[in-house]
Amino acid sequence: MKKFVNKPDRFVDEMLEGVLAAYPEQLASCSGNMRNIVREKKGDKVALVSGGGSGHLPLFMGYVGEGLLDGCAVGGVFQSPSADQIYEITKHVDSGKGVIYLYGNYSGDIMNFEMSSEMAEMDNIKTAHVVGNDDVASAPKGEEHKRRGVAGIFYIYKTAGAAAEEGADFDEVLRIAEKAKASVHTMGVALSPCIIPEVGVATFSIGENEMELGMGIHGEPGVSRTTLKSADAVTDTMMEAILADAPLSPGDEVSVLINGLGATPKEELYIIYRRVAQTLASKSVKVFHAYVGEFATSMEMTGFSISLCRLDAELKRLLAKSARSPFFEQAQL
Amino acid sequence: MKKFVNKPDRFVDEMLEGVLAAYPEQLASCSGNMRNIVREKKGDKVALVSGGGSGHLPLFMGYVGEGLLDGCAVGGVFQSPSADQIYEITKHVDSGKGVIYLYGNYSGDIMNFEMSSEMAEMDNIKTAHVVGNDDVASAPKGEEHKRRGVAGIFYIYKTAGAAAEEGADFDEVLRIAEKAKASVHTMGVALSPCIIPEVGVATFSIGENEMELGMGIHGEPGVSRTTLKSADAVTDTMMEAILADAPLSPGDEVSVLINGLGATPKEELYIIYRRVAQTLASKSVKVFHAYVGEFATSMEMTGFSISLCRLDAELKRLLAKSARSPFFEQAQL
Repeated sequence: MKKFVNKPDRFVDEMLEGVLAAYPEQLASCSGNMRNIVREKKGDKVALVSGGGSGHLPLFMGYVGEGLLDGCAVGGVFQSPSADQIYEITKHVDSGKGVIYLYGNYSGDIMNFEMSSEMAEMDNIKTAHVVGNDDVASAPKGEEHKRRGVAGIFYIYKTAGAAAEEGADFDEVLRIAEKAKASVHTMGVALSPCIIPEVGVATFSIGENEMELGMGIHGEPGVSRTTLKSADAVTDTMMEAILADAPLSPGDEVSVLINGLGATPKEELYIIYRRVAQTLASKSVKVFHAYVGEFATSMEMTGFSISLCRLDAELKRLLAKSARSPFFEQAQL
Repeated sequence: MKKFVNKPDRFVDEMLEGVLAAYPEQLASCSGNMRNIVREKKGDKVALVSGGGSGHLPLFMGYVGEGLLDGCAVGGVFQSPSADQIYEITKHVDSGKGVIYLYGNYSGDIMNFEMSSEMAEMDNIKTAHVVGNDDVASAPKGEEHKRRGVAGIFYIYKTAGAAAEEGADFDEVLRIAEKAKASVHTMGVALSPCIIPEVGVATFSIGENEMELGMGIHGEPGVSRTTLKSADAVTDTMMEAILADAPLSPGDEVSVLINGLGATPKEELYIIYRRVAQTLASKSVKVFHAYVGEFATSMEMTGFSISLCRLDAELKRLLAKSARSPFFEQAQL
């Protein structure tokens, strides 16, 4: 196992010790549990809370910050955080204006966030759920409720986070989050697996000259395994799948997210972005802003995902607003 | 070769097409050469120019932006840019206040930046050179002029860039750059190589259970190859080497940069930062600001480096200033 670790069962907690040591002015933990990450300064606003398994940095806790999330429940590697964690964070971040949960479509997460909602209700804390399901490869059109949430959740955080930060009320922030969720579609590809420290072996095996299209961020099977194609050919296949699912018309405006899964060099992500930009230009679709880098990883997995988020004037304005966490900074666009 | 590429000989140019397509409001190229990257808006200030081989994103061009560099000459993968490129950029960015070159200690780069200086002199453009040499593993104390420049150049860019942006004159910006250069010390470790697209094979070979301490960012040999140790043991060895070279006293203040070389997950970088923070705290050394992430990579190499930059009030103030490039954003600290 070619990893820098100490005791594998301490992987998540030592990582959190590092994060909390690095950003004492921005992040804190609450209720005596280091895995319950919150902003250092509590806001008087609708609160946004996420959570999920570790191993995806900057997902999920990397988006706790100004103009983004208020809290995040951190699970073990690829494991859901507990309902108690989510509930404790909910109590900490609520200012009386309610708490909206934004998380990915995984059964463990859904169960625990729902359980937390029930506990919060007894404390008269209003909650709502927006479950990211942007991965078009994980279930066919018409069965969107079965799709996994992957990197596209970034757009939900960013736009709902901006709305909450500027004082929008509960229903309004929820409406924005739902709109962003409906506007983003993603597809991924992987060339190599990652290693869960406590397991110590690769999450899947794949040939030296193979790629898996549509693979999930935990190594869930994709839609096809083929020989590795050129960057342009891979990108074209993925764009065709996304655009077949969520067609764009001339004059439409989008934001593009090219997300590295861990080991893929930034240089290659820009080669891919180049091809995406060419394809969108050929369809007279305008790119408002491009994000290229690591936004949702699978530790040292090689691969990337493409997300397209269709923008109207409202989402565009919110996406453009400044945001600041230790893992993601954006000046006003 | 598990990479997303088209024709390997188009790797750098296609990457640049992607970068220029992604950030039209921030970056441009000059003199008809896509490899000559400059800020979209020219500043009326002392200009800072860097350059070096490709394969290290965000180095070098990723630091062209507000409060950072004005231009960057992009070479082939692990190859120096040409003197002509540097000279064309120099003419483009000079506002009459002179141009300071900030680059790493590699013979090809030195030769070409010096040749560009000679050409610029004939145009009455004043230039100066600050050559980063922060890698303590690459030559012993007393032979600092033989040391390679690695991730620590970030601190030179950041502090000299802030000084230039606020209007400091040529000699003042040069003084700051020299001070930052003298204040930063780095050591790296690698677990796996990278692949140069045009070559198609790994830059070096290393056993499944081995690590190479002190390895350079192009795979240059390090100081020792041993079996892979725990994260804490590796970190302690590196910190001992850095602190033996550049001792710190109780009450000193530093900034820490934990730099991933490409494939190492952010989770592991925080486990490492945790140990660095513990060590510094035990010596009563204060950390002003921690940077953790990818600042100078070697494509898909697995490994990391630790840089410590000793701060006085002046460097601290400049480090804290806001900066913005497509690859690096920092709000005022």
